[in-house]
Amino acid sequence: MVAEIICVGTELLLGDIVNTNAAFLSKELAALGISMYHQSVVGDNAERLKESLALALSRADIVLTTGGLGPTYDDLTKKTVADYFGLDMELHEPSVKKIEALFQRRNWPMTPNNMLQALVPSGSIVFFNDYGLAPGVAVENGGKTVIMMPGPPSEMRPMFIERISPYLQQKTGGIIRSKTLFIFGMGESSVEDTLRELMTTSANPTVAPYAKQGEVQVRVSAKADSEAEALALIDPVVEQIKQKLGSVVYGVDIGSMQNALVTALKQKGLVCATAESCTGGLVSAAITDIPGASAVFAGGVCTYANALKTKLLGVGEDTLNRDGAVSAETARQMAQGVRALTGADIGVGVTGIAGPDGGSDEKPVGLVYIAVSSPAHSDVKKLMLSRGHKNERNSIRSIAALHALSMMLEAARKA
Amino acid sequence: MVAEIICVGTELLLGDIVNTNAAFLSKELAALGISMYHQSVVGDNAERLKESLALALSRADIVLTTGGLGPTYDDLTKKTVADYFGLDMELHEPSVKKIEALFQRRNWPMTPNNMLQALVPSGSIVFFNDYGLAPGVAVENGGKTVIMMPGPPSEMRPMFIERISPYLQQKTGGIIRSKTLFIFGMGESSVEDTLRELMTTSANPTVAPYAKQGEVQVRVSAKADSEAEALALIDPVVEQIKQKLGSVVYGVDIGSMQNALVTALKQKGLVCATAESCTGGLVSAAITDIPGASAVFAGGVCTYANALKTKLLGVGEDTLNRDGAVSAETARQMAQGVRALTGADIGVGVTGIAGPDGGSDEKPVGLVYIAVSSPAHSDVKKLMLSRGHKNERNSIRSIAALHALSMMLEAARKA
Repeated sequence: MVAEIICVGTELLLGDIVNTNAAFLSKELAALGISMYHQSVVGDNAERLKESLALALSRADIVLTTGGLGPTYDDLTKKTVADYFGLDMELHEPSVKKIEALFQRRNWPMTPNNMLQALVPSGSIVFFNDYGLAPGVAVENGGKTVIMMPGPPSEMRPMFIERISPYLQQKTGGIIRSKTLFIFGMGESSVEDTLRELMTTSANPTVAPYAKQGEVQVRVSAKADSEAEALALIDPVVEQIKQKLGSVVYGVDIGSMQNALVTALKQKGLVCATAESCTGGLVSAAITDIPGASAVFAGGVCTYANALKTKLLGVGEDTLNRDGAVSAETARQMAQGVRALTGADIGVGVTGIAGPDGGSDEKPVGLVYIAVSSPAHSDVKKLMLSRGHKNERNSIRSIAALHALSMMLEAARKA
Repeated sequence: MVAEIICVGTELLLGDIVNTNAAFLSKELAALGISMYHQSVVGDNAERLKESLALALSRADIVLTTGGLGPTYDDLTKKTVADYFGLDMELHEPSVKKIEALFQRRNWPMTPNNMLQALVPSGSIVFFNDYGLAPGVAVENGGKTVIMMPGPPSEMRPMFIERISPYLQQKTGGIIRSKTLFIFGMGESSVEDTLRELMTTSANPTVAPYAKQGEVQVRVSAKADSEAEALALIDPVVEQIKQKLGSVVYGVDIGSMQNALVTALKQKGLVCATAESCTGGLVSAAITDIPGASAVFAGGVCTYANALKTKLLGVGEDTLNRDGAVSAETARQMAQGVRALTGADIGVGVTGIAGPDGGSDEKPVGLVYIAVSSPAHSDVKKLMLSRGHKNERNSIRSIAALHALSMMLEAARKA
């Protein structure tokens, strides 16, 4: 079964709002096992909407629209669809009553255009709107279905989940489930090279990689009649990918590196602490973004000034003079120092040059040292994180923070 | 002149990412006076992309695509457009050099698919990618133009602003300039109410508000023959808006609250420091995101554990026992304590309950105290940042961080 989305609204064409409805519906339809090959956006214009509708109906079994169901003169989706199929409009009585009740309760004057919201194409299936005034509508005609939903996400999303998804499940049968592998330390193209055969030969489950900043995720999705059957298709492929990729897979359905870290620390009953220079608090901010982080995070220091590195972390003045603030030895002393300062089990130290200024031939922008220290494990890494682009400060800092989290995760798992 | 956008990517059809590129480009094209009546999304499929391209070219003068320029087998936008126009592909040498340099510097093995990114349709106009590897491309053919851009917003947005917008301005005639007012402490609907008359009556310059998390920006844009003429139209309106809105306008074209703060500190020759609890490093991370922050930022501490608040910042144990860690007095002592610890001129202390757990009737989730301390000025604010939605931890932390930066900015300007 193939669906298409048409989002109606001049505000989308002007960029005044971001089209989150399309992403929401795409995900929901994929979860129902309904395929989609096209989405489109048109303004509040009957002629262009009718053309887009004709095109979508020529390619898909089901066309879902959002927007244009309200009371103003430019809300013309229902009328346009009714005209397309040669249907009259009729009042939907429960919606009439809801609109009248609201205006009475608020003591608002009722203008005639408000009742336009209660008009639906004759013979259509109506989805009552519990979160607003304009009902949703499905028109079934000649083997095709057009489903019209309100534009505001606060009305559209619950209406879809509560009323339209059950209606669609009757049509499709079967469910889709997926698992996502989280990968750090291997680029998207290498992941693809390694998994190419699997990706191209596997139809159910499907295997698809997605690049995120500094990370790659691989999603394995299967369609089946039941959750158990879907998982039986997915799990062996997840295992196969784990074996092919090795230790760069840091979790399955784990959400993020910081979530993996907080989870591992909780499991082991460990507490961590951070000493940051170039990342400026990004590592501690990431850890504390996870609810319940307070149980596993003692605290952090952001020692930008050298004097503070010595005062708080005990980094030797001789080390700063000899090796410099950006050095393996300084990172190591920062990691050890923050453990001593806070009493944490695992400490991390990050020092580097995020740019754009401050680089030299010997120590260029993008050079970052990260050290981790714990009773059972210590490590220090030298990273060159510049890719030679403009304005890299932000990405150098973010990727350095990811490495720091990853090294802490390794230390937690080894503890 | 009419344009259309085609966003290419199966991840959009699956709802894995929200299509922010379409909204960005819509706004930019509207600002250039270019009309748009349709947008569409297709997956990584050459046949369907070619059909969408043909349809878009039948309706528009300019078609802009995003996505599908990368190194993997499903990145097929450039090849598909070249095939459509019957063009061969050729290597773009500067992009080849950039890719080779990156792989050399990183000591990565070069796989052949990486060079695919440097292939462009022959005779096309190439927009070098300063923020990634795959260049953008324009193909002009038979009075129509197809402009292809990378999918990642971090590459697409600056490429559009720096290279493609000037290219389009040559086609449209005239230039567009704009200034943006940065507003904190007034909601979008209040800003709109206050500026409604100006927004609806002013055609050149146009006045448009945009809501960002916790902030509002108002952009004033004018079209004219020269920069001087455009600014002569813009500047009086910017002044008018400043007078109408008052002190909530914290800057014009200032980029961000943290940039305003770093700029103010530099102007006054002042140094700041941060003491964070619930924000976990977001304030220091924001400040250090600004290049050159090291001149005005001594350092920060993230004191999650109470013992650390006492040890590092000198917060009284009696205060913690009597008033609690989340209190005005604790915030005040944190702000003063971090000044003493670091020797900074301005200190900020943030303590609160970000949730989802840890709240009580007396101290609910969303309660945050922020104190600022400097020789000339001190202040403490009690904020209630919950809106009663689910999953608010992230927004409570971000908005608390904005308030902290805003209070430091006020202290810097008063110093």
